[in-house]
Amino acid sequence: MTTGTEAPEAINHPFLRELVTQFRALDAHGAWDRKSDAQLLEPFIVDKAKRREIPIMGDPDPEMLERLELFYNALGLAIEKRCGHMASPIMAMHHEGFGRVVLTTGRLVVVSRHLRDVHRFGFDSLDALAREGERMIDAAVALIDRYPEVARL
Amino acid sequence: MTTGTEAPEAINHPFLRELVTQFRALDAHGAWDRKSDAQLLEPFIVDKAKRREIPIMGDPDPEMLERLELFYNALGLAIEKRCGHMASPIMAMHHEGFGRVVLTTGRLVVVSRHLRDVHRFGFDSLDALAREGERMIDAAVALIDRYPEVARL
Repeated sequence: MTTGTEAPEAINHPFLRELVTQFRALDAHGAWDRKSDAQLLEPFIVDKAKRREIPIMGDPDPEMLERLELFYNALGLAIEKRCGHMASPIMAMHHEGFGRVVLTTGRLVVVSRHLRDVHRFGFDSLDALAREGERMIDAAVALIDRYPEVARL
Repeated sequence: MTTGTEAPEAINHPFLRELVTQFRALDAHGAWDRKSDAQLLEPFIVDKAKRREIPIMGDPDPEMLERLELFYNALGLAIEKRCGHMASPIMAMHHEGFGRVVLTTGRLVVVSRHLRDVHRFGFDSLDALAREGERMIDAAVALIDRYPEVARL
């Protein structure tokens, strides 16, 4: 099914809907009103060629860090929509572009990632972005189902 | 037993030993070699009178944020010494002095704190500092004992 080009239906994936909502909420002055949802998510698409062009020396772009936060915020909201349990992100980044992020539900760590070279954070396609979100949401919800008591602490 | 003055034995408390070790490790140039352990921990002592003098407007002192990190790092190390499970801190602070810190062991959140007004972070006495550390370590170890499977994930 996936051929490397955008599956037009990817933009309707619940995780991408959440990301779009997060982006639009930031846009207090309506600067992006004329952008389509796919255009809005365009900066998340970093394919191999684009990746090679981004140096990993120096500090990552502040907009890149903002996108990273949006990604994990959207993940938390998508997890909550899926299972009714809030998942709060905490991200601690060194300014050079490495760090760690966790999402917690009660006393359960439902997502845990060590981050590095976030300068190049991105996905091959909208479809790949949706699949990765889906995978992380599935894993988080499976953990909550397995340890409901810890998730409620 | 506690009268508000320093119990001289407080400095030998395992949590305070961990804090002292953390401080000395930072001191690459030996600037604090002539300071006693109690003098080193002196900045953690913020009694009521001192607290009132610290404004909570503006950004907290960077040295205060460093002490906050030392506190939670030492807590993680003390938890590991007590039960053999590493507890890794993640702290995300807004520059104005509020934020959140968690310590995680496997997929278990063993310490979780919302922080505010960290400008005034401190304790009435060394004794109070040791007691608070002890209390948090006890609670973390109790959680690990209760959910060993989650702590090993």
